[in-house]
Amino acid sequence: MSGPLLSSLAGDAQIAALFAPEADIRAMLEVEAALAEAQGALGILSPVVAARIASVCRDIRPDEEAIRRGLVRDGVPVPELVRQLRAAIDSDHADDVHVGATSQDIVDTGSMLRLKAVFGLLNERLVVLLSILDRLAGRHGAQRLMAQTRMQAALPFTVAAKLRTWRDPLSRHAQRLAEVRAALPVQLGGPVGDGSSFGGHAAALRAAMAERLGLADGLPWQSAREPVMEVGQALALLSGTMGKIGQDIALMAQNEVATLKLSGGGGSSAMAHKQNPVSAEVLVALARFNAGLLGTLHQSMVHENERSGAAWTLEWMVLPQMAETAGASLRHAAALLEGASFPEIAQ
Amino acid sequence: MSGPLLSSLAGDAQIAALFAPEADIRAMLEVEAALAEAQGALGILSPVVAARIASVCRDIRPDEEAIRRGLVRDGVPVPELVRQLRAAIDSDHADDVHVGATSQDIVDTGSMLRLKAVFGLLNERLVVLLSILDRLAGRHGAQRLMAQTRMQAALPFTVAAKLRTWRDPLSRHAQRLAEVRAALPVQLGGPVGDGSSFGGHAAALRAAMAERLGLADGLPWQSAREPVMEVGQALALLSGTMGKIGQDIALMAQNEVATLKLSGGGGSSAMAHKQNPVSAEVLVALARFNAGLLGTLHQSMVHENERSGAAWTLEWMVLPQMAETAGASLRHAAALLEGASFPEIAQ
Amino acid sequence: MSGPLLSSLAGDAQIAALFAPEADIRAMLEVEAALAEAQGALGILSPVVAARIASVCRDIRPDEEAIRRGLVRDGVPVPELVRQLRAAIDSDHADDVHVGATSQDIVDTGSMLRLKAVFGLLNERLVVLLSILDRLAGRHGAQRLMAQTRMQAALPFTVAAKLRTWRDPLSRHAQRLAEVRAALPVQLGGPVGDGSSFGGHAAALRAAMAERLGLADGLPWQSAREPVMEVGQALALLSGTMGKIGQDIALMAQNEVATLKLSGGGGSSAMAHKQNPVSAEVLVALARFNAGLLGTLHQSMVHENERSGAAWTLEWMVLPQMAETAGASLRHAAALLEGASFPEIAQ
Amino acid sequence: MSGPLLSSLAGDAQIAALFAPEADIRAMLEVEAALAEAQGALGILSPVVAARIASVCRDIRPDEEAIRRGLVRDGVPVPELVRQLRAAIDSDHADDVHVGATSQDIVDTGSMLRLKAVFGLLNERLVVLLSILDRLAGRHGAQRLMAQTRMQAALPFTVAAKLRTWRDPLSRHAQRLAEVRAALPVQLGGPVGDGSSFGGHAAALRAAMAERLGLADGLPWQSAREPVMEVGQALALLSGTMGKIGQDIALMAQNEVATLKLSGGGGSSAMAHKQNPVSAEVLVALARFNAGLLGTLHQSMVHENERSGAAWTLEWMVLPQMAETAGASLRHAAALLEGASFPEIAQ
Repeated sequence: MSGPLLSSLAGDAQIAALFAPEADIRAMLEVEAALAEAQGALGILSPVVAARIASVCRDIRPDEEAIRRGLVRDGVPVPELVRQLRAAIDSDHADDVHVGATSQDIVDTGSMLRLKAVFGLLNERLVVLLSILDRLAGRHGAQRLMAQTRMQAALPFTVAAKLRTWRDPLSRHAQRLAEVRAALPVQLGGPVGDGSSFGGHAAALRAAMAERLGLADGLPWQSAREPVMEVGQALALLSGTMGKIGQDIALMAQNEVATLKLSGGGGSSAMAHKQNPVSAEVLVALARFNAGLLGTLHQSMVHENERSGAAWTLEWMVLPQMAETAGASLRHAAALLEGASFPEIAQ
Repeated sequence: MSGPLLSSLAGDAQIAALFAPEADIRAMLEVEAALAEAQGALGILSPVVAARIASVCRDIRPDEEAIRRGLVRDGVPVPELVRQLRAAIDSDHADDVHVGATSQDIVDTGSMLRLKAVFGLLNERLVVLLSILDRLAGRHGAQRLMAQTRMQAALPFTVAAKLRTWRDPLSRHAQRLAEVRAALPVQLGGPVGDGSSFGGHAAALRAAMAERLGLADGLPWQSAREPVMEVGQALALLSGTMGKIGQDIALMAQNEVATLKLSGGGGSSAMAHKQNPVSAEVLVALARFNAGLLGTLHQSMVHENERSGAAWTLEWMVLPQMAETAGASLRHAAALLEGASFPEIAQ
Repeated sequence: MSGPLLSSLAGDAQIAALFAPEADIRAMLEVEAALAEAQGALGILSPVVAARIASVCRDIRPDEEAIRRGLVRDGVPVPELVRQLRAAIDSDHADDVHVGATSQDIVDTGSMLRLKAVFGLLNERLVVLLSILDRLAGRHGAQRLMAQTRMQAALPFTVAAKLRTWRDPLSRHAQRLAEVRAALPVQLGGPVGDGSSFGGHAAALRAAMAERLGLADGLPWQSAREPVMEVGQALALLSGTMGKIGQDIALMAQNEVATLKLSGGGGSSAMAHKQNPVSAEVLVALARFNAGLLGTLHQSMVHENERSGAAWTLEWMVLPQMAETAGASLRHAAALLEGASFPEIAQ
Repeated sequence: MSGPLLSSLAGDAQIAALFAPEADIRAMLEVEAALAEAQGALGILSPVVAARIASVCRDIRPDEEAIRRGLVRDGVPVPELVRQLRAAIDSDHADDVHVGATSQDIVDTGSMLRLKAVFGLLNERLVVLLSILDRLAGRHGAQRLMAQTRMQAALPFTVAAKLRTWRDPLSRHAQRLAEVRAALPVQLGGPVGDGSSFGGHAAALRAAMAERLGLADGLPWQSAREPVMEVGQALALLSGTMGKIGQDIALMAQNEVATLKLSGGGGSSAMAHKQNPVSAEVLVALARFNAGLLGTLHQSMVHENERSGAAWTLEWMVLPQMAETAGASLRHAAALLEGASFPEIAQ
């Protein structure tokens, strides 16, 4: 595992893998394949050529180092990737690769493919988390608990009521994740975004690609980035909710309060008696991290003209971290609640 | 008009008025009235008492200064407002005011009422803006224009294609505004949020209040603030889109580029020949301001236990500004595009 | 008092007054006066004319509404202000007003004058706060207290040690405030910032103005905004430190912990037994608000060419709020600690 | 090289290496060694034991995977690192390792050591950048150039004057970097931060460690994080200034403006004629990224009581990225300006 030590705690290896160079390149190749196949299906390319391109896209072993160098030179990895693809195809058909498309079509659609996988993973974890909460409710729901408002004891309620305050937003998240996932759009606009490079076929091609790739069809969004912001919002809401759960748990697990008991973890180098609510604290950190990143992501809406390298680069710097942070939140929340119990208290 | 000089430029008096003390208090009174009437309809209060409370809510002339002092003392304006209401009712029925409710129910629901008005206003302006864009398209759509990608001339396209890059996200905003507006939820949870203070009537009361107030019904969200974040997101997306339009216009109106001509405004104290694209620049500033505020708003998701005064105060500090900023964005965009034209260029 | 209800709690009327239109205009007039006087002293203007201009600057009753309209039109208030000044001077000398200067020179230098007053006020409050802490230390310092690390009881230490964790950063703030205040720089660059509009006198004029206005001399910073960022940093650090104190107090004042007792405030509309640590919560909200605003302020460093209306407007939207938030932090912290005591605990 | 593809463009391998696990662990070992040696020098440990511990710290080959696991368990890597150290020492002296210290002392001081190296590296790059600017001034300084204010042509000035607007803040940065570097403080407070775990030796030990490690001495700052914020500010100011330079260059390199010519880079997959100002755009993205991160970093000032795992984790997530971003900014700025020239223009 790479990255700073802290990534073991605050990161998420499974999500990170979806943004690793290999997955990135693989997704872009999938988009080039879908483009060729859709062009084949619509008679823009001969079906044979289209199939040949798609098969090269699937079999090629791209030179990652050259792609990195290309990215540094061009600001996007696509020109070099397309060069490699063309070199791998019989020279007669080299020019049939990437026809009409522009780098951004490939990068944006490739990002959406990976986000689809991300949302799938997050949803799986959310389902697990919901079941952990249900188990806790089954075990402890009837117990009494002091509700706390504004950092003061308020009135007693039940553990079930407490758990509902965690569970209700999670159910809403499950629905939101599904909606955002289903709405992840293909991007196809060509060099200046108006689709004119595809002759009259832009809309049909886009629809065909969307279907092949399992993405939503929709107007080009190359310089109108709400789809990306919706993704960011869903991720920040997830980690925000987990941060609230973490904050609650850290407060409840205070020695003087002790309305929730954690198992495992949290050793101190200086105080052997301590058991620190590490995952609860991390949840708070992750929530605040993602909240800040969402603000930064929105800065990238100010997109200069038909394509902004500045805004686009900013997006790419932020979004994978937000996904990883949301993933880590779900991971920590599940671990934390799995080991949590509510001590019986005398009434 | 109050506030710093700059508020004349970057603020929005109409939206600001919806967050002024009088509107704030009036909305809270409307909520208290709806609560009483719903309790009357459900037989929790006698219909006569309910009607009496509702009528006092509508007729009372609240002592704003006392409410400000109460807010400073209690962190919320509701205790003092309820005190004034009770004092205004025949002493027999003073205790029938605010029964079962807590401050947050009143404040949150009151906020949603005002946001409903905000979204109505934003929508009106959006409709105007769309028609201005349509007029521009009708007038200039067929003209050629150099598309610009990554701050470089790319390929020519049409003014119509350019205008679509501004209009498409605005249509999506119109739909989003309608959705978010329709989803603005009532909040009713009582002191600890579990509804137990309303006996078995919490859900029925909530539904009745929602209907009376024209809000959506839904589970209590007192410590799960996604509804507020969705509002913030819609506002930031609006100003973000306007910021992109402003950025484009500032770039197109450069003397050396001159693909868009503005009318009016922009005098310089030192250079009489200049005409600065003031509103375009302001749009960029507004977008960046709201982007940052959205990040701050999300910090308030980390809500301690059943109610967080810290998170809640932060929300209140941020949200009205975000609404005003979105409103100012639409105002500037309309003014700017109203006076914009695309000079004919020799091909 | 104007502004939303919440401004009574989270705002600061004294600081807000320093950013009100009248103070804003008054500061700009002071800068125009200092410019004329410095030009008089250097023989650029006749001393009589200089004195006449300065006297008009001091005596004029500016038309604020016209200045607001000018600001909306021009993006800055200076063109209209200069027009009013010129109209108030004998027509022979109208052109001697504002010679060589540009709007930004006046606005930026005027802002620095007001920030000087802000820092003076903040420093006075900081001194009071330090003395409150010293009094608390004198009264309770020897008492034992459980130190808390990572939300868990750690080891006992003393109230004196606890108070030092609050006081040490405050002493550093006192020094920082003095340094930042002493470094607040005059801005004088003329229309394009290179001083050429002042003939060979730019540096001498700048120095003379700095001395007259009690500001630091320094190279033009019209498009290099670190001086503004340093101000923002000092303000955010102040509210950040207060936020930490507020967080500690909210934690210590929990019913189950009760290592700190607060007096006054915090009524609930639904639970008469509660006493909410309102000011402590507000301190946390203020800290988070300013932290976010600092991030936004830094977005304005990306300044297009010789002057950016977009970046500049963003600065103006953010900075007064940051000052007010820092001021409110000190106000709440003093009130809170004034009423705080540490209960004796059995060992 | 690891990390997403984009790290090749927006990251900085040299700075990243200073935050890699090996450098992290090595720095912490250096701190443990300095602690032991300082304790030896002060007679708290026998000099022989101190030397033995220091030598083990330098020679040990730590088990990184076990440290990662320890970090996940304990929230900090130190308990496991100390365990490995103790196991590597003769059992008689195992307990002499880490005496009186707490995890945070080691982590924070280790971070400061690495930041010292970061600032050294940044300073080297800044010196190079200044010399590139001087060379450009020597070559093109006398040429005329149109100054641009508020996105409009203002008045002509010289290339020298333009270059000064970039250079002046860089000189201030050079001074600021030196100051912040010299002020990077050792942290030594023991478990609850009051130094009591070191008997009466806390201040002497701290001073001795500071001297050994080349850090500044100062009061414990374990829960008062201004030193970290000052680092963040210096980093954000650096990337902010570079962002402004990048923005200027992107504007000047527009085809229609063409007052600055770039060499190399910027290929397009769809438009062979284009040369995109990739590094200029990246500079803008880096500036906005760091601006946002600074806001998030300040959220971590709200530190609960004597040590906050949540705030601390947030710091660690943000700070290395800010350093890497500042480093990448200097790298891109140098490359960009190295290849920049100002075309002679007909007057």
